Amino acid sequence: MNKAPAPLLSITRRLRSTPFSRKVAEAGIQAYTVYNRMLLPTVLKDVVSDCQHLKKNVQLWDVSCERQIAIEGKEAATLVQKITPRNLSNQRTDRCMYIPIVDDTGGMLNDPVCIKFSDTHYWISIADSDLLFWIKGIAVALKLDVKVYEPPIYPLAVQGPKSFAVMENIFGSEINKMPFFSAKFFKFKNESFLISRSGYSKQGGFEIYVQSDKKEGNIGEQLWDALMEAGKKFDIRAGGPNYIERVESGLLSYGNDMTSDNTPDECGLQHFCDETIFAECIGGTALKKRREDKFQQQIKSLSIDGGAVPACRDPWVITKEDKVVGQVSSAIWSPDFNTNVALAMIHQPYWQAGTTLTVHCPDGERQSTVCEKSFN
Amino acid sequence: MNKAPAPLLSITRRLRSTPFSRKVAEAGIQAYTVYNRMLLPTVLKDVVSDCQHLKKNVQLWDVSCERQIAIEGKEAATLVQKITPRNLSNQRTDRCMYIPIVDDTGGMLNDPVCIKFSDTHYWISIADSDLLFWIKGIAVALKLDVKVYEPPIYPLAVQGPKSFAVMENIFGSEINKMPFFSAKFFKFKNESFLISRSGYSKQGGFEIYVQSDKKEGNIGEQLWDALMEAGKKFDIRAGGPNYIERVESGLLSYGNDMTSDNTPDECGLQHFCDETIFAECIGGTALKKRREDKFQQQIKSLSIDGGAVPACRDPWVITKEDKVVGQVSSAIWSPDFNTNVALAMIHQPYWQAGTTLTVHCPDGERQSTVCEKSFN
Repeated sequence: MNKAPAPLLSITRRLRSTPFSRKVAEAGIQAYTVYNRMLLPTVLKDVVSDCQHLKKNVQLWDVSCERQIAIEGKEAATLVQKITPRNLSNQRTDRCMYIPIVDDTGGMLNDPVCIKFSDTHYWISIADSDLLFWIKGIAVALKLDVKVYEPPIYPLAVQGPKSFAVMENIFGSEINKMPFFSAKFFKFKNESFLISRSGYSKQGGFEIYVQSDKKEGNIGEQLWDALMEAGKKFDIRAGGPNYIERVESGLLSYGNDMTSDNTPDECGLQHFCDETIFAECIGGTALKKRREDKFQQQIKSLSIDGGAVPACRDPWVITKEDKVVGQVSSAIWSPDFNTNVALAMIHQPYWQAGTTLTVHCPDGERQSTVCEKSFN
Repeated sequence: MNKAPAPLLSITRRLRSTPFSRKVAEAGIQAYTVYNRMLLPTVLKDVVSDCQHLKKNVQLWDVSCERQIAIEGKEAATLVQKITPRNLSNQRTDRCMYIPIVDDTGGMLNDPVCIKFSDTHYWISIADSDLLFWIKGIAVALKLDVKVYEPPIYPLAVQGPKSFAVMENIFGSEINKMPFFSAKFFKFKNESFLISRSGYSKQGGFEIYVQSDKKEGNIGEQLWDALMEAGKKFDIRAGGPNYIERVESGLLSYGNDMTSDNTPDECGLQHFCDETIFAECIGGTALKKRREDKFQQQIKSLSIDGGAVPACRDPWVITKEDKVVGQVSSAIWSPDFNTNVALAMIHQPYWQAGTTLTVHCPDGERQSTVCEKSFN
């Protein structure tokens, strides 16, 4: 919790529980965040020991808050291409695709992962915003022949270097032949689960798309228990996306490091935007124009000098010789790298690796340095 | 916090702070919920004493999370009428209007309040969902001549029986001539603030739409301090929507008591849906059809027997002679009414006042009775 006094969270039905919520509570989870109006576990013991455990062992994360948007129907492919500047013409059915979604100004609305089952059936696994409303609004307004809805799918992530052994124990050795960002169906207790080689850490692992209700003893709880049992010898524990590990790894968080003010280019996602389809996707024209102006800022990893920084709840101004040249959006002390690690949006030309900048933390000014790449 | 062990909330930039966040923290707020990805204070001392204070005194609530959607442009009026089944043909510029928003199936997406400045300028003050995405998606798809965006407006509520005296001290006696649900501009320190006679309690009060940045000493903090000073003699305190008071008052909460599964009719909002405009609004055809089938369930106030119920985090099944006839969505012990008060979606014909039903609480079955109307 980064040393700042942590307030309590009042939980009601509106902050939706998941098929795994009982298991997560039994595991002794101490803190949550709220993501897509759903509980997302953040801290089991403390952020530092959770991070060290993740890097050595294996953890089970209830990431049900990665809600799915199902798009089904004759015009599904047309709709999906319309909402992203990524070229989907060669999309395979056994691969996940990271697809930035932008509005008519080119500003990012979400950065989901898209899974294609066929030309008439897609899932979009979303970051923290009601992308369902955007996609459905467009589909309804254009009277497209599609059904857009949120299916009862709750992703469960198995993350960490020992995740491979644990998953093999449950799903067989085929699971470890999957390339990164591939997706395939596997059986557990005679039910089929889509599994992808993916996850919100750089420690390796999988995401299992669990279709379940929330009743006691549901298939999700059965899977949770089986994974926990298989992971015992690796000291498996419950967990959640770890703030230190994700900042070290340069994993962006929509709402933290990027908002609707930012283009994909600014977020380092330029390779996922293809000018040949700008004419047919929403926001393409705006993106082209903003690209012609050359983009003026970009997300970079930073190190920040001094002892542990306080919690970064609002962006911190970055200056160079008293001129504002950017802002820090995520920052925390990293014991492994013996420095504060951070993600920041930095104006050109100050984003060059090695540039020294001044970060205005709540507890005073600190020296910082732009990194060549992320820490992990 | 209803006696259940409360976990901690991990706060990052994604859970947005407000111009009042510093003041709220200084006031010693203990718990928050997250609403529209923004911090919403819920508990200052404890839910019971906060409730009793609200009913006698006056409280300042940071309800910045009631985000505004601004709709500006030539086709603004067309767009606003398109998204709601409420007839807006007689909408006045000095009145708030509660407008249910439904999707193409007639399911509720939000239950906001609409304020009209002119035929080309509206604000929509939203409940907890990204309604901006829905409205903007429709506007972009239909290429309407409008701009749809979230302006930097942060509502501050002054609630409780002493709110009238406090507001008069700051804004003059004109403020107390405002009828319920009217809206008008008032000055504070030479800046204009839209103020409405409204709020998420039945204890009386106002909502002030504060345009502000988040810098220390911002106009929002100045207004907060002035209100706190004026309210000293009435024992004013910081607070937030109170779970006991709102359930006693039958104030619905989107995400708790109603979701996209429900029509406005089911939520008791049938008077806000006008069949004469069903042909021109999204979801009108579906609503008409669902209405012809007669609606099968409706939200009602309930009393639940026995001592204090546990926290209602997932809906509780309601049965009558072993047949499922509904679910409780919100419930808490009310010291003032010496019973558990609840809101529940109940199937017909079991929604008649006086009907006794069985509620399946996590700690066992309880008798309950359907109420004629809300408690407050």
